[in-house]
Amino acid sequence: MSGGSTAAFATPSAAFVRNPHNVLVLIRKANDKDWPAIWPFLRKVVAAGETYTLPRDIGEKQARELWLLEPPGRTVVAAKPDGTIAGTAKMNPNHQGPAAHLATASFIVDPAHSGYGIGRALGEHVLDWARSEGYRAMQFNAVVETNTRAVALWRSLGFEVLGTVPEGFLHPTHGYVGLHIMHRHL
Amino acid sequence: MSGGSTAAFATPSAAFVRNPHNVLVLIRKANDKDWPAIWPFLRKVVAAGETYTLPRDIGEKQARELWLLEPPGRTVVAAKPDGTIAGTAKMNPNHQGPAAHLATASFIVDPAHSGYGIGRALGEHVLDWARSEGYRAMQFNAVVETNTRAVALWRSLGFEVLGTVPEGFLHPTHGYVGLHIMHRHL
Repeated sequence: MSGGSTAAFATPSAAFVRNPHNVLVLIRKANDKDWPAIWPFLRKVVAAGETYTLPRDIGEKQARELWLLEPPGRTVVAAKPDGTIAGTAKMNPNHQGPAAHLATASFIVDPAHSGYGIGRALGEHVLDWARSEGYRAMQFNAVVETNTRAVALWRSLGFEVLGTVPEGFLHPTHGYVGLHIMHRHL
Repeated sequence: MSGGSTAAFATPSAAFVRNPHNVLVLIRKANDKDWPAIWPFLRKVVAAGETYTLPRDIGEKQARELWLLEPPGRTVVAAKPDGTIAGTAKMNPNHQGPAAHLATASFIVDPAHSGYGIGRALGEHVLDWARSEGYRAMQFNAVVETNTRAVALWRSLGFEVLGTVPEGFLHPTHGYVGLHIMHRHL
């Protein structure tokens, strides 16, 4: 379950991991300068309306405020060896107070870099982060059931479906479909 | 399932409902002047740490920002016939975009007015509001499983448990207990 962080590359804010193709992916904390690289594919994925519970016509300001988190939240980018930012994830507490031991996270991979293992590298990184921060579990609140690649990826990373909100998501071609709530202990 | 709104009393922002004891309860939109009445019992309930996923030592400013919602959210108070504010509820979209048809809500009843039907009156009001706003379902994200009165109330109002986050809540006497995700169609 380790993200496979290579000690020689690891720093407190960045770590290279090997994706399933055995190619290095750099996962590092996002900064303001990354936003121009994130926004085009974030907008594309949200506008498609197939996987995200965000307004399809979301504005750049709202998207940026929502995506680039301050502590206790955190946002990272995944960069390919040539520096191209191919995906991003944000992670944060899912609840507060007596339920603050539950983390949550969201992921966006640039469709142009699909199939490269970026989502898996980000998922493993987020789990490592949550463990190191002392969270006891990770919960995803809204995984669209027709997003079968994501569902399969999270299952392969140890998540189970806790429950499914019936007709919880209006898909542009499938109509109302379920929204999975997924969970795993850490 | 109607909140039993009495036309003679109803206004766009306030409605009397009869609680199970056949006593009128006024449900109306909360305003800034209600906060001094809400804060003492909100603080007491949150500090007890048995039912709420908020910091037990929550500050007044944070609580106020979190509780008094602007549109598309809404916050109401429940007043007894003598004007005493005995409970409050807030309601808002649970997700955005393609899942914006799901509403959620939170409730706090002053323990000093427990057993008077305030929670039920607020629950029925919230369901009426969500229907009138065009939501298709109501979802509660974190109902502590040991809060058996609340679980029974929501079941009696048509909610079902979609799933339970195992060990999702650290209860001061029961230790880690489950957090129910509850749902009903509208």
